[in-house]
Amino acid sequence: REAMEKSLDFGDWIIFGRREGKTALVSMRDIGADVILNDLGFMRGYAAFDVASAREEVVFHLHDHLKRLRSSVQALGLSQPEAIQFSNAAAFEQQLKRLLARNSFKSSLAWFYVLAGPSSNGFTPLGEARLLVRVSEFDESSLCRPEGIAVKVVNAKRQMPDIKCVADYAFAEKELAYCRYCRSEYDEILYTEDSEVLELSRRNIFMVKDGTIVTPKDNVLAGVTRGIVINIARELDLPLEERKINIWKPERAEELFATSTASGVTYIRKLDGVREMDDDGQCFEFGPVTQKIQQQFLKYRNEFFQGIQQKQLPILFPP
Amino acid sequence: REAMEKSLDFGDWIIFGRREGKTALVSMRDIGADVILNDLGFMRGYAAFDVASAREEVVFHLHDHLKRLRSSVQALGLSQPEAIQFSNAAAFEQQLKRLLARNSFKSSLAWFYVLAGPSSNGFTPLGEARLLVRVSEFDESSLCRPEGIAVKVVNAKRQMPDIKCVADYAFAEKELAYCRYCRSEYDEILYTEDSEVLELSRRNIFMVKDGTIVTPKDNVLAGVTRGIVINIARELDLPLEERKINIWKPERAEELFATSTASGVTYIRKLDGVREMDDDGQCFEFGPVTQKIQQQFLKYRNEFFQGIQQKQLPILFPP
Repeated sequence: REAMEKSLDFGDWIIFGRREGKTALVSMRDIGADVILNDLGFMRGYAAFDVASAREEVVFHLHDHLKRLRSSVQALGLSQPEAIQFSNAAAFEQQLKRLLARNSFKSSLAWFYVLAGPSSNGFTPLGEARLLVRVSEFDESSLCRPEGIAVKVVNAKRQMPDIKCVADYAFAEKELAYCRYCRSEYDEILYTEDSEVLELSRRNIFMVKDGTIVTPKDNVLAGVTRGIVINIARELDLPLEERKINIWKPERAEELFATSTASGVTYIRKLDGVREMDDDGQCFEFGPVTQKIQQQFLKYRNEFFQGIQQKQLPILFPP
Repeated sequence: REAMEKSLDFGDWIIFGRREGKTALVSMRDIGADVILNDLGFMRGYAAFDVASAREEVVFHLHDHLKRLRSSVQALGLSQPEAIQFSNAAAFEQQLKRLLARNSFKSSLAWFYVLAGPSSNGFTPLGEARLLVRVSEFDESSLCRPEGIAVKVVNAKRQMPDIKCVADYAFAEKELAYCRYCRSEYDEILYTEDSEVLELSRRNIFMVKDGTIVTPKDNVLAGVTRGIVINIARELDLPLEERKINIWKPERAEELFATSTASGVTYIRKLDGVREMDDDGQCFEFGPVTQKIQQQFLKYRNEFFQGIQQKQLPILFPP
């Protein structure tokens, strides 16, 4: 291979398939690119995916991520790969541990892709969906970035809000590329529809208003971190409501924050088009409620990994 | 390679990249799949594409397809690959001819993909966009299918109607997969927004009403076949209007047809939810206007290939 054709090396990919009647694991380095190129997952972005974080060989809330992946697979009309079927959970967990061990990152992201499968005409899948898993290095400091994020408001929504479909994330890339072109530094876009606040392109959004935490309920992805934050708020006895938010409500909010697997709990310093910036170029402070939720989330996450390692938590796949 | 990892063999893929300062052409069979997997074109469907038909080594309206590809690349905020820049048109045409000759199909489809490039975090592209080209066998009989197509009406539109972005075609795959699951045999979906007829998922739509041909103008892809059909109608002195069509107008239309590169001019026999089927399970006849347009299109296409072969048409890339 020549340098020009080589991609940067971000981590290992494996493919799950059947060999001699068993689900086996093969490195993508040993497979020609044309295997992927004829797949509708590549040709049309017709693929479900999910991303989970891991510390050494333990995956954070793997159960929730696989549950959502299976749900995305079903909603997209793909076949469920044998490897992630519930009855194979223990075997899959073991193979995932082997992959994580092989990459030996202290902290990593596990990317799960279910591709629609090969197609001769470019639209009808011919066979069963394929499962690919990638492990890439993860910097845990991204879970508590003190600088927060800047968000641009966009009048659009994802076409399949309850599904993590590869194709449903390209519009945001285009919008962010346009921001970079205009030298406007945004980390994220906020989807809104008919003045209703929905979600950021890769995060769920939360508002703190009159001491109450509010987050949209409908037409948004059911985020794993979102769910954990809701539980944390309940445990801390902080009032929380899941309901519609009008786009102008954040203007008078005390705090805004966002949640995701790769960034945990992040405060939103700027929401363009809704609230004026102060002299430091920010619209919101990294307030006390967001700080408390973030600390509690990091504590919970650490305890999760310690608990699994000390075998205090029973299994990754509760019944 | 084991059988399980091998894809079906639909045709050759090549990648254009720089080697020793020159744009070179490399077969994807010799490149590991991980080269593609770290690309946002795969990870998010963040890629522009176009599909052109070819007979032997001549590509039909290559100029129009490359013009639209460059326009999609720009609208998506990707960098223009050197190979398809206008100044390299002649060199690119020669390389494309070599690829077509190597595959030696009598008739083929050429698939052009411009991928955003590799990314370490899964959203920000790190380098220049990459151009991939695939050649697959094409059955020209699909240009005059006498059975027509069945279309389901959907209240949705593509997010980027003026762009051919990989990601913007997965929603249709999902809808069609759901139709197959329900045992409803549809070939296509029709996008509509607020009662306005837009486009089919891979085709433009035309209606014949009171002897006038009408086709939507806005929020639809500027189809190459659509443009040719508009020219044909003018040459045949058939009245044609580009304007909005209300979803209920087709109910009383004499004929409906669709246009695309891979299917040419196809009559629509069924439009679900708008017009009742007759006893033969169809809503529309393969009428005289559609027949005339289809014949003229096939004649024009044949003459195009013959003209190029006899060097009567000057060049594939007019100034």
